[in-house]
Amino acid sequence: MNAWKEYQDQHKDRFLNELLDLLKIPSVSARGENKGDMIKCAEAVKASLLAAGASRAVIYDTPGHPIVYGEKITDPTRPTVLVYGHYDVQPADPLELWHSGPFEPVIKDGKIFARGACDDKGQFYMHVKALETMVQTNYLPTNIKFLIEGEEEVGSPNLANFVKANKALLDADVILISDTAMISMDNPSIDIGVRGLSYIEVEVTGPNRDLHSGVYGGAVANPITMLAKMIASLHDENNHITIPGFYDDVIEATQEERMLMAKAPFSEEEYAKDLGVSALWGEKGYTTNERTGIRPTLELNGIWGGYTGEGAKTVLPSKAFAKISCRLVPDQGSEKITQLLINHLYAIAPEGITIKASLHHGGEPYMTPIDSDGYKAAAMAVEKTFGKKPIPVRGGGSIPICALFEKELGLKIVFMGFGLDSDNLHSPNEKYDLVNYYKGIETIPYFHQYFAAIVED
Amino acid sequence: MNAWKEYQDQHKDRFLNELLDLLKIPSVSARGENKGDMIKCAEAVKASLLAAGASRAVIYDTPGHPIVYGEKITDPTRPTVLVYGHYDVQPADPLELWHSGPFEPVIKDGKIFARGACDDKGQFYMHVKALETMVQTNYLPTNIKFLIEGEEEVGSPNLANFVKANKALLDADVILISDTAMISMDNPSIDIGVRGLSYIEVEVTGPNRDLHSGVYGGAVANPITMLAKMIASLHDENNHITIPGFYDDVIEATQEERMLMAKAPFSEEEYAKDLGVSALWGEKGYTTNERTGIRPTLELNGIWGGYTGEGAKTVLPSKAFAKISCRLVPDQGSEKITQLLINHLYAIAPEGITIKASLHHGGEPYMTPIDSDGYKAAAMAVEKTFGKKPIPVRGGGSIPICALFEKELGLKIVFMGFGLDSDNLHSPNEKYDLVNYYKGIETIPYFHQYFAAIVED
Repeated sequence: MNAWKEYQDQHKDRFLNELLDLLKIPSVSARGENKGDMIKCAEAVKASLLAAGASRAVIYDTPGHPIVYGEKITDPTRPTVLVYGHYDVQPADPLELWHSGPFEPVIKDGKIFARGACDDKGQFYMHVKALETMVQTNYLPTNIKFLIEGEEEVGSPNLANFVKANKALLDADVILISDTAMISMDNPSIDIGVRGLSYIEVEVTGPNRDLHSGVYGGAVANPITMLAKMIASLHDENNHITIPGFYDDVIEATQEERMLMAKAPFSEEEYAKDLGVSALWGEKGYTTNERTGIRPTLELNGIWGGYTGEGAKTVLPSKAFAKISCRLVPDQGSEKITQLLINHLYAIAPEGITIKASLHHGGEPYMTPIDSDGYKAAAMAVEKTFGKKPIPVRGGGSIPICALFEKELGLKIVFMGFGLDSDNLHSPNEKYDLVNYYKGIETIPYFHQYFAAIVED
Repeated sequence: MNAWKEYQDQHKDRFLNELLDLLKIPSVSARGENKGDMIKCAEAVKASLLAAGASRAVIYDTPGHPIVYGEKITDPTRPTVLVYGHYDVQPADPLELWHSGPFEPVIKDGKIFARGACDDKGQFYMHVKALETMVQTNYLPTNIKFLIEGEEEVGSPNLANFVKANKALLDADVILISDTAMISMDNPSIDIGVRGLSYIEVEVTGPNRDLHSGVYGGAVANPITMLAKMIASLHDENNHITIPGFYDDVIEATQEERMLMAKAPFSEEEYAKDLGVSALWGEKGYTTNERTGIRPTLELNGIWGGYTGEGAKTVLPSKAFAKISCRLVPDQGSEKITQLLINHLYAIAPEGITIKASLHHGGEPYMTPIDSDGYKAAAMAVEKTFGKKPIPVRGGGSIPICALFEKELGLKIVFMGFGLDSDNLHSPNEKYDLVNYYKGIETIPYFHQYFAAIVED
């Protein structure tokens, strides 16, 4: 369809400027102070859907942040694609490490720098512009529905209820998500799995008040030291996770799958060099790609306690805190792992301190069958525009709602992501390459074309 | 001397109000933003000395915060007492745990609540008011010099040079310091030792940027986890410190001294109850009082890294930090222990991370001989006003400059402190009981009287 490409080329600059406007809204779902920005962002998403040609778009309030729904139904007898994405973003801090404001997008070296540039504003917005392209060129092979939520980065706490209450509204033939990465533009790949998540916070309390570390030091359990001992014990000398029962439900990848994975182009040396580390780290017996793809992990996301300001303070603190999250693989269940993790922390808490561990959020792992219609259509679309068959890979990230989508809506999910691992997701200087943004907008209409063809075949 | 007591009773309220004014100045030496307050506080101290009857008072600038010197020379042939104290205070945070503003002193239940109420504004100011008492009653048995510095809480980095350059100015027969605590008002005690200090900060760097914990988690050493492993290894299962050579220079207390210490009134049960902990902690083979008095310690004073804000952020951070301090006992040397600690951290740093460890400040341990003139005079003064012979005890805190005083000035130091361990030094809601403040002002003139009598005997 040359008409698609022509239309996109003509409107290139506007497609970019519209995204930049969206990136200026600091829609950080985790922060109470951004509540108003979330509403503003939801309204901008709704407006963008209508402008792109959606026949209707609605904002649904939730106890948390609003959900935006939009649709373009051309012919109810034809296949329907449900596009899922999220307009919320991760917190931007540490702010001092950004080279430009996280919500003041700039273009540098062909890349858009801003929080949300790739995750996920830049990626779901490709679908909005693909819709416009198909509508304006009068060639829309499917019906399209959009479900763009505002709580993905905090575990989608209100989406499950919305999905359960709106099954007819969300009825479709496949769910299409662009919220993952490719190996590289030269080695296009499609994620066939996302990991689950168990994210908790633990509070360790020692003495009932901050103490003078000289007067009391040596005689009272220091909550930082005790927390460190607990954290240190969570991985053994082979970097296996020590929580009893943690690996019980892990489906070991087959030798065949591991051999296929090993064929994906990857250099451990370049990987280490890019990260600036002298040695990689991980679970003994697995390669780096296996560690981030097919194995569950436990990471410390944050720690704090005592005096963290300038200079020195000789305090033995009352409290210390940590944020800990596990990535899960099939068939680990998020609720079960969360409970195992919390129980284990209580079990190993040393004498003289008390702990309080609680869930932030969780999500189930999910796998896409590579023989599903959706996967096939995505692979064909990517091959069409990239000129290469995409490699199926298991991604390390999580999209908490996937398992629920499949369960409630009976639909398979396709992850057609156009990001790169180097996009600094969740980090300072998040970016999205312009070439990826435009390539995504170019590829998406082909997905609709091929998917319709396969389903209607 | 009834005249002293009478004068003090008549001026009680003013003695208190003047202290409250001093406590209102946020003289936090560790924070650059309080630089102006430090100068303001030094000026207030100088003015208070002159108002109390000092014949002269001078502010000496340093590369850091100013030093205040004052003197009242009545008769150069009589003994001279050099009073050392500090007008700087610890940072006040965590602010949210204060029941009233740290620099808005309030009186509640007979206690002054404010940062510095006890450590050390409230305590050095007793000496200012004792000077006034002796001058106004025309009975000052000694010459008095005051050395009130503004950098004690940051390790007195500029005091050593000042002392070395001003030996004649500081010439005296004894150094008297009120910056320690008593067991209780019913069990008066005098500290015969302060511990030394080695305070360092360590920065652990993993990847060169914050990473998405799903995309990279499990494949890269997490600096928080690695720091936790390092911290966890610093104490063994008996809570001995594992740094090679750490205990080499520790002079073991004699059985006799340990038996004497054991006689001091102390209930581990009440101690634990006061701190709100279900079990005490510490080095195997030593009692609580021994752990805080005669044994060296290693405490975590602060830790931070990754996301510490509200909610959840799935980040694998680039960096993690800790503040660590050791308390030292004779004959451990601060420089040597600092070097051992830093070397050990480098030695145990796991693969895949780099560390940077650096000194904040240090100080040597110090012991007062109980057969010295100064100790004898202090014991007599305390017995005079408390009606009980004070118990000699080893304190857990540090006054970094003591060893240098003795070396440069050839003087013994007496710690005549009137605080209590429960005064929340370095913690929120620091307080100083009014009864302790007034009792101190009452006791100090007797020290001068007895010291003069012993020396001139």
